[in-house]
Amino acid sequence: MSDAAKSHGRKTIRPTLQPRELMTDRPDIAGAWKARIITLFPEVFPGVLGASLTGKALDEGLWNLETIDLRPFGEGKHRNVDDTPVGGGAGMVLRPDVLAKALMQAARGTPQSRAVWPVVYLSPRGKPFNQAMARRFSRAQGMTLLCGRFEGVDERVIETFGIEEVSLGDFVLTGGEIAAQALIDATVRLIPRVLGNQASIEEESFSTGLLEHPQYTKPVDWDGRKVPDILLSGHHAKIADWRQEQAERLTKERRPDLWRAYCETHGRDPDGDQEL
Amino acid sequence: MSDAAKSHGRKTIRPTLQPRELMTDRPDIAGAWKARIITLFPEVFPGVLGASLTGKALDEGLWNLETIDLRPFGEGKHRNVDDTPVGGGAGMVLRPDVLAKALMQAARGTPQSRAVWPVVYLSPRGKPFNQAMARRFSRAQGMTLLCGRFEGVDERVIETFGIEEVSLGDFVLTGGEIAAQALIDATVRLIPRVLGNQASIEEESFSTGLLEHPQYTKPVDWDGRKVPDILLSGHHAKIADWRQEQAERLTKERRPDLWRAYCETHGRDPDGDQEL
Repeated sequence: MSDAAKSHGRKTIRPTLQPRELMTDRPDIAGAWKARIITLFPEVFPGVLGASLTGKALDEGLWNLETIDLRPFGEGKHRNVDDTPVGGGAGMVLRPDVLAKALMQAARGTPQSRAVWPVVYLSPRGKPFNQAMARRFSRAQGMTLLCGRFEGVDERVIETFGIEEVSLGDFVLTGGEIAAQALIDATVRLIPRVLGNQASIEEESFSTGLLEHPQYTKPVDWDGRKVPDILLSGHHAKIADWRQEQAERLTKERRPDLWRAYCETHGRDPDGDQEL
Repeated sequence: MSDAAKSHGRKTIRPTLQPRELMTDRPDIAGAWKARIITLFPEVFPGVLGASLTGKALDEGLWNLETIDLRPFGEGKHRNVDDTPVGGGAGMVLRPDVLAKALMQAARGTPQSRAVWPVVYLSPRGKPFNQAMARRFSRAQGMTLLCGRFEGVDERVIETFGIEEVSLGDFVLTGGEIAAQALIDATVRLIPRVLGNQASIEEESFSTGLLEHPQYTKPVDWDGRKVPDILLSGHHAKIADWRQEQAERLTKERRPDLWRAYCETHGRDPDGDQEL
């Protein structure tokens, strides 16, 4: 896996107007989920996605990755892709005409319905990415991801192309590329056979609405630091109770927002220790 | 910049027990911010961080990146790093003794105070990463990031080493590597001279507590789709008012949580259009 990741990283990426497979020797399984990424930095893909199980699944053709370099669609000798904001202000904004050409390229051969092929712009203005969104994207045929860098995107393009704005969180990134990789990783691992049954297990644990309880493994006595006795007791029901209590305690402490939501759906008093 | 990114990607990473510069030809500026990353996939770094302005700043020595391969610290012939959870359950848990060796390696030559050198484990159980955290990390001398893959981490290690758990968001990733890159990107761009004065501008816009208003650039008439007249009026005060209204509308629609927080700090009624 490590070798595969390195060979992806070494692959020389030439700017091109045609979307194409990053690895032409990969099988193209009909109906495999596909990500098309519009970016000024196509060479950073697949990046982390080329390692580990997502990389293995990419090699096996369980999903596909295509980059579309935005630069060649730029204007003039310098292939400018951005310009100053109308009405004044700092920063630069990606031009609608330039983006439109790249988006039309990305749309080739894809279904028109945004439910079947979402088109996403990664931006702190978007709806926060979460596991439900990952599930929805993983059930689509594929998706187009538009990565900005600093700049905003001209609003007319967002409206005209029915683009969904998605945010990775309340922080500012230098560009959309890392956010795109995070979104794709979370999505691809839900595709059948990518992780085997691992995904379904974790999905379930995530969907309890609580943070996970503390975990322990060998050695049971690590330099005098011992695993809690209850976990060694063999009493499955007591272990389950302890883990539930710990999960609730952690959620209450770290994520009051999740805790309130959990209490609402489970008929619990958020300020009490008992059921209502 | 593109060439630099490629050459990072091509760099062959050998497993080693010593932390070291990924690029030995980079200047090591005294006092430059440093990220030490414990990972089973050192070859995926710097990844996206090696491109664009973060990559340029890395080449110039404005910040440093070191990877510590977890594998050589593993147990037995196969260098196992994980084992089954005590008390039963699915998945695997990273062993405390193995992690401790890697963490002690990472701690060499770093200050003991977690305020000056935070040690972070990227996990969905953590506190959500945000811009305030990025600011805090950027003011430290550097930080250690522990990337898991699937597995949880033995709780005793988290307690013993005073590790801070940080979550990128409410979604499950295959591993912590992409989350680490996102955290580092958001942090490094706040370090003086990495982005010039760009960062301070964006910081300010982020800290209004509202999502950004729509942006427009040339062409003013794009295939019959025109920029709103107000932005062409030259009335700076009216433009500012329009942008404020738009920012409020978007925040209300997309992020009721941010909108409520904004109203609280600005003495506004979240359900009304007017000030209280």
